[in-house]
Amino acid sequence: MTTRISLIGIGVGNPEHLTLEAVRVINEASLILIPRKSVEKGDLADLRRQICADVLKNPATRLVEFDLPVREAAAPDYGAGVEAWHDDIAARWRQVLQAELPEGGEAALLVWGDPSLFDSTLRIAARLDVTVRVVPGITAIQGLTAAHAMVLNEIGQPFLVTTGRQLRAQGWPEGVDTLVVMLDAGCAFEVLDPEGVTIWWGAYLGMERQMIRAGTLADTGAEIRKIRAAARAEYGWIMDVYILRRQG
Amino acid sequence: MTTRISLIGIGVGNPEHLTLEAVRVINEASLILIPRKSVEKGDLADLRRQICADVLKNPATRLVEFDLPVREAAAPDYGAGVEAWHDDIAARWRQVLQAELPEGGEAALLVWGDPSLFDSTLRIAARLDVTVRVVPGITAIQGLTAAHAMVLNEIGQPFLVTTGRQLRAQGWPEGVDTLVVMLDAGCAFEVLDPEGVTIWWGAYLGMERQMIRAGTLADTGAEIRKIRAAARAEYGWIMDVYILRRQG
Repeated sequence: MTTRISLIGIGVGNPEHLTLEAVRVINEASLILIPRKSVEKGDLADLRRQICADVLKNPATRLVEFDLPVREAAAPDYGAGVEAWHDDIAARWRQVLQAELPEGGEAALLVWGDPSLFDSTLRIAARLDVTVRVVPGITAIQGLTAAHAMVLNEIGQPFLVTTGRQLRAQGWPEGVDTLVVMLDAGCAFEVLDPEGVTIWWGAYLGMERQMIRAGTLADTGAEIRKIRAAARAEYGWIMDVYILRRQG
Repeated sequence: MTTRISLIGIGVGNPEHLTLEAVRVINEASLILIPRKSVEKGDLADLRRQICADVLKNPATRLVEFDLPVREAAAPDYGAGVEAWHDDIAARWRQVLQAELPEGGEAALLVWGDPSLFDSTLRIAARLDVTVRVVPGITAIQGLTAAHAMVLNEIGQPFLVTTGRQLRAQGWPEGVDTLVVMLDAGCAFEVLDPEGVTIWWGAYLGMERQMIRAGTLADTGAEIRKIRAAARAEYGWIMDVYILRRQG
């Protein structure tokens, strides 16, 4: 009656980001969970379906789709709101697993990017009575650096990976000249003094509609704001990430 | 007469870390460069050979092996020493490309981990008159977090990726509670006050001999020092990475 869930990083947008390990583990699963996050991000569920259609050769593997609960964005306490949302998602998973794998077995879940990086899947899995295996995947950070053919760090120097929320609240942190900004719902870089700062930005990384821009924050920041608004209006959602570097 | 070099991230130690894109690009190359870094790390050249043996189906693709120049570790200025070493490596590449692809064409180089992360391949390629394409790969960081089935960041919180040298010189940096430490030739964590710090450590990630440990820095730090010394003595080299987290 043991269930194992394999959390499989699938990279960002490009079905060819899948690793050989991911392909193998997908084909070893009895059940693949396909959560539908929200209508706007329908593209992402489509990507998961496409990946399964492309690489799944095991006729015994079943796919099951289900809607995820939505986070209460208005919750007064951000941390508590996230915890409650993860509880709700875990309850949903539990329900699906009990219905579809009542005897236990091998389940798998395709995770955008990599399960270790600003992703809640591992925290949700920890709420269930299951064993967990992680298959690493290409992150949005590597999608961005590959698109720009750039090195993330300066030689021997550190970099900080942070969020739009943190950048907006605290400005440029002390002691580090390279920042990676993820989960930025707006353009948090606008709170910074752009003098001497370079930005490397990318949206829809790995997808056909991938957009990248790089340049001084002063010039390119303004351009990104426009591109971002237009793209969000056109596609209904946007997922982007960027690197900022200031002269040390 | 144009040459393109594809820098292909191959992940860390596990041939199954290879992405489908990496497999495709390997098979599109006319020439694959296999640099031999040093005798101690012979395992890594072996891994590259194994990967090519496993996935290369194009009979027209040629492999060429060559020895890399060695960095003068005793150079008084670290930065200048690295620059001179990269110049030497670029000269070696140029020589090999001129000999093997005199008419230009598609070359590829298999890069440990991902070309964006503490890797010099992109800086070396920039010294040549070639176009460069990057194929992202699984990094040691994702190898580590997958092995521990852990999330790297705390919810909404930043993390800093740094080096053993930086940690040793500067101690725990301000404003961040999670550190990823790479390129640590010793056990730089020993400079820290271990109180309230947890470590997640891994060596030879993705390989059959993979070792991981996690626990309080006070207890596990001492154990890691012993394991590390024994493993280095046994295999002649060690490559490890770790995450440190302190109570916020």
